[in-house]
Amino acid sequence: MPRPRLIVSAGDPAGVGPEVTVKALARPEVRALAEIAVAGDPDDLRRTAERLGLPPPERVEPAGDAGGVTPGELSAAGGAAAVAAIRRAVELIQGGAYDALVTAPINKEAVRLAGFGWPGHTEMLADLAGGAEVRMLLVTERLRVVHVSTHRSLRSAIEMTTRRRVLRTIEMGHAGARRLGFDRPRVAVAGLNPHAGEGGLFGDEEVREIAPAVADARAAGIDATGPWPADTLFWRAGHGDFDVVVAMYHDQGHIPVKLGGFDEGVNVTLGLPFPRASVDHGTAFDIAGRGIARWQSMAAAIRVGARLATRA
Amino acid sequence: MPRPRLIVSAGDPAGVGPEVTVKALARPEVRALAEIAVAGDPDDLRRTAERLGLPPPERVEPAGDAGGVTPGELSAAGGAAAVAAIRRAVELIQGGAYDALVTAPINKEAVRLAGFGWPGHTEMLADLAGGAEVRMLLVTERLRVVHVSTHRSLRSAIEMTTRRRVLRTIEMGHAGARRLGFDRPRVAVAGLNPHAGEGGLFGDEEVREIAPAVADARAAGIDATGPWPADTLFWRAGHGDFDVVVAMYHDQGHIPVKLGGFDEGVNVTLGLPFPRASVDHGTAFDIAGRGIARWQSMAAAIRVGARLATRA
Repeated sequence: MPRPRLIVSAGDPAGVGPEVTVKALARPEVRALAEIAVAGDPDDLRRTAERLGLPPPERVEPAGDAGGVTPGELSAAGGAAAVAAIRRAVELIQGGAYDALVTAPINKEAVRLAGFGWPGHTEMLADLAGGAEVRMLLVTERLRVVHVSTHRSLRSAIEMTTRRRVLRTIEMGHAGARRLGFDRPRVAVAGLNPHAGEGGLFGDEEVREIAPAVADARAAGIDATGPWPADTLFWRAGHGDFDVVVAMYHDQGHIPVKLGGFDEGVNVTLGLPFPRASVDHGTAFDIAGRGIARWQSMAAAIRVGARLATRA
Repeated sequence: MPRPRLIVSAGDPAGVGPEVTVKALARPEVRALAEIAVAGDPDDLRRTAERLGLPPPERVEPAGDAGGVTPGELSAAGGAAAVAAIRRAVELIQGGAYDALVTAPINKEAVRLAGFGWPGHTEMLADLAGGAEVRMLLVTERLRVVHVSTHRSLRSAIEMTTRRRVLRTIEMGHAGARRLGFDRPRVAVAGLNPHAGEGGLFGDEEVREIAPAVADARAAGIDATGPWPADTLFWRAGHGDFDVVVAMYHDQGHIPVKLGGFDEGVNVTLGLPFPRASVDHGTAFDIAGRGIARWQSMAAAIRVGARLATRA
């Protein structure tokens, strides 16, 4: 089996992205996971490594200019450098040079200052990759949770709980779990309402939309079950009853994942033409440039990226 | 300080209620928590204790007749016995004989078969105690979570997220935490929408309803903060940043509590004229009469009931 080839976009150079990338890649057990290149400003990555007393990344794909950027300071230059690194990484993957993308954090406001209209990192990638329908999968050691919707009001999340969209999410979660190494993933679908609606007593989305979507998925050969009451489902999934959970809205899936601690959570985007894993933290401008950022989430993202990218 | 006086309603005799009550009260460390009586059928409690090879409860307040009830079988007789025990316990508390109520599980369907219209245990108690406005507080070792709404569709839960109702929930959670021994409780209020609405970008309930309720509570001298993004709030509360969390809807509060495991969760009803703690499981008809029911949740409910009942 050939080694997976990953490219890491270094993120906003004013944030902790370059630092956590350098720190993670300085560890032999991380480098052993894949062939790993970094898309970013080579000078900035070298300076970051020097400041930390660590070796610079072995392989850099030059992109962007972090010259005018000050650690911890929001700037158009930082946003532009972050976007340049992502663009370059996507081009290289689409040209066949790499198998998966791992992203360090960017700052939405900096991207906006640089003149771009994307509301977020994932939307930018969906756009650069050609308008894909994406879903967010959160991955920890014990839980994998894919979301029917994410950054929407709870009111709109309810409107988005449709048979078609739930089915599509089941299918994408199933495919994602297979890439992560589950041969025949057991997909558990959460209810939207308390007690999964208790037979229509507390809301009818389970009866009208979710149960039919589960039936559709089963008819298509997916081992999907539910809708299950959400309050006990995550405990069961965390104890091995299921391989992937379909959450109906952002907090339903994020609350149990974040309770497990912050270092290990990896954010995976499903539905792009290539696998993408991301650290589960932001640019952390408040601690940027001080050498104290934790690298564990980047290492976890690289580990998950390598699993997603494994070529048959 | 006088010992608190608790009364335990034995629940539906066809379920595990009498068994977990006898098992919990057989333990000296549980009996040491309070003076504890059981409201139920004395013959049934004695037979249950004999079957388990344990001593019967020392003090029984006779109520209901479990004579015609078969373990594990739903029946009107079981429902009637459960209601009789609750009625008797409430009468005795209101007459001043006990300080707090601990409830074993009842079966809603059995209660309905017995001819009563209450949709649940808590509604029954609110009705018997005179129409109080109640809130559900879940208590574990590490988390205390009070809910703005519980058994409602998510759609109606959003409608119930009003300034008045959120404020009332903060006040009740604050008072409950004080009874549990927190002198000046730090009350954290969750947002309704992802990222607590991100400044109105994903829903405006935070701006319109929740933030004003937090301001009202602070003006009234309560150490309330928020609205906080729900996904990271429970981790913080579980690690000591807050004493009680106000959750906006059932699953938001139940998911983190149930992830902590099932044995220790205690369901407290706030807003009744007396404190009430309940086990966090149902009648479990499938294992009733087999002697294998776990008593830990009943012991935890008695422990919390004793804290709530402590007389100054």
